[in-house]
Amino acid sequence: MSSPASALGSCRYKVRSQDDYKKILDVFKKHNIRYFFYIGGNDSMDTADQVNKLAAQTGYAFRAVGVPKTIDNDLACTDHCPGYGSVIKYLATMTMEAGRDTEALYTADTVNVIEAMGRNAGWIAAGTALARRNEEDAPHIILLPEVPFNEEKFIAKVRYYLDTIQRCVVVVSEGTKNADGTYIAEQKGAFGKDAFGHTQLGGAANYIKSLIEAQVQVKARFAMPSTIQRTGIHFASKTDSQEAFMVGAEAVKQAVSGVSGKMITLVRSSAHPYSCTTGLADLSDVANGEKFLPKEWITEDGFFVTQEFLKYARPLIQGEVEANIVDGLPRFVRFKKNYI
Amino acid sequence: MSSPASALGSCRYKVRSQDDYKKILDVFKKHNIRYFFYIGGNDSMDTADQVNKLAAQTGYAFRAVGVPKTIDNDLACTDHCPGYGSVIKYLATMTMEAGRDTEALYTADTVNVIEAMGRNAGWIAAGTALARRNEEDAPHIILLPEVPFNEEKFIAKVRYYLDTIQRCVVVVSEGTKNADGTYIAEQKGAFGKDAFGHTQLGGAANYIKSLIEAQVQVKARFAMPSTIQRTGIHFASKTDSQEAFMVGAEAVKQAVSGVSGKMITLVRSSAHPYSCTTGLADLSDVANGEKFLPKEWITEDGFFVTQEFLKYARPLIQGEVEANIVDGLPRFVRFKKNYI
Repeated sequence: MSSPASALGSCRYKVRSQDDYKKILDVFKKHNIRYFFYIGGNDSMDTADQVNKLAAQTGYAFRAVGVPKTIDNDLACTDHCPGYGSVIKYLATMTMEAGRDTEALYTADTVNVIEAMGRNAGWIAAGTALARRNEEDAPHIILLPEVPFNEEKFIAKVRYYLDTIQRCVVVVSEGTKNADGTYIAEQKGAFGKDAFGHTQLGGAANYIKSLIEAQVQVKARFAMPSTIQRTGIHFASKTDSQEAFMVGAEAVKQAVSGVSGKMITLVRSSAHPYSCTTGLADLSDVANGEKFLPKEWITEDGFFVTQEFLKYARPLIQGEVEANIVDGLPRFVRFKKNYI
Repeated sequence: MSSPASALGSCRYKVRSQDDYKKILDVFKKHNIRYFFYIGGNDSMDTADQVNKLAAQTGYAFRAVGVPKTIDNDLACTDHCPGYGSVIKYLATMTMEAGRDTEALYTADTVNVIEAMGRNAGWIAAGTALARRNEEDAPHIILLPEVPFNEEKFIAKVRYYLDTIQRCVVVVSEGTKNADGTYIAEQKGAFGKDAFGHTQLGGAANYIKSLIEAQVQVKARFAMPSTIQRTGIHFASKTDSQEAFMVGAEAVKQAVSGVSGKMITLVRSSAHPYSCTTGLADLSDVANGEKFLPKEWITEDGFFVTQEFLKYARPLIQGEVEANIVDGLPRFVRFKKNYI
């Protein structure tokens, strides 16, 4: 539990065609593999769904069950996704700590901009709101992909915080877009798109920092935690970790009992006290859905989230995974890879 | 102990002239302040030294004692500086975790570049070497300000790691310089210099990422933890924290016993087992010195540090400060500021 989930390995290959599905199924058949548990997000659920359908067509006795896992928290049909609680616990902590740095310096570097992951949905950026226990605490402004960026209103908001508390910490989602739908910051060049054809983002924080310096005439800083935010196992959420194990175990149980073509979901069975059980959703329903931050959880001015969101998110960050520290640093396992 | 040191507040005002020193001393006289403990780095020790000398000239009974504190670890006369152990413990952990992300993806995003603070000295970047317990572990290459950047040799080294272990994590110090002494990345524009006239850095990691993409033709990522690396109290070094208290307490003790014009130093009284006591250095000796990473602690190829450095740094990251976690996130104090 104290090694990052990345110990399992991952991939970024985009399964594109019926030939790809056929090849996957052929490999399964060759090694008499009858159970396929695919851990991931929308794209992964789509792959599991297609392979499952092809197996059924060819009469191969086979079960495919999806296991949700994405820090983006954007899967349909599930209350939330394993990985999300940990990333927001850690990024909220970073925001809180960086906010104190800004506060300490109070006559310089009074603006700090932190970039959160999240291509289309603002769940991760929104989660940093948990760090704000009172008006003075960071973050003061959150920029979400769900809200078209309005430069004028944004600069006015930055000025408001500089006038009232003499500092301003902004969390900006990498997926924040202009009113015309273009990203405020896109990576150009030969590697401007990933294997899935998605535009590579990065630079939103730097953009916002430069904008503030130009418009407000104060020195600003920015931070881009990038992949660091999603790998912080030294401060992972225990609730999140336990739920990750829960959906994995349930997937095995369901597959053995005959279920196929489904993804395990998390169902919030009680809000107070928080408790979660599992459910099932069709892989195709998950594959074709993308869950955005609901409009009613965004404040009217578009720069923060509501109490309702905080009530939703707070249970997900509770508890800390016990770190396995050796000689001052975490100790991770490395699995031996046996390719066949 | 579980609130960041920034709770005390800080400043970035450059004390420039005799008028400034006179004003500081006038304020001290007005409020009958007889003890001046100045916590900081070279610039702070210079200020304490000048105010102390002026007090002596004017016959004001007064004691000024410097307390070392800089994550940069670049102060002369002391074995190391409070703050350094915690920043490298945290940044090494980030590097280790981000390295596992790169490793998990092994067919994509195989290069990751992490930017470390450190204007002129490579102590912070060097400290991430502690994360590398074996050949496979990140970081694989460390770029230091002490070693002029050689693009050709660097690209060859990146290729070597991509060929042998199919990935490469680079830690680059923000202060890395070209052979002609210019920084590989400088901030331009109206806020390109800070209050001290120092060039503002930032962008070294982005520069190295773009260079690798252009020269090696692989997709790379970069992370810029910025101030986050120096505020990570949730994973601070207990050894570092205890030594910070030790130098503070010793400063008070020394001042009460009549010492003035000195900075408290840390003296490594034993290497195995590690133990540290305190000593004294003239403020002027600290003010005018800047301690770089010794050449003999840098490997011959210039891209890593030696075992001797690791032996020096490892004791400084031992133990974890107990975090005060409330509702899933750290809880920090906020002192009430009473301006007079």
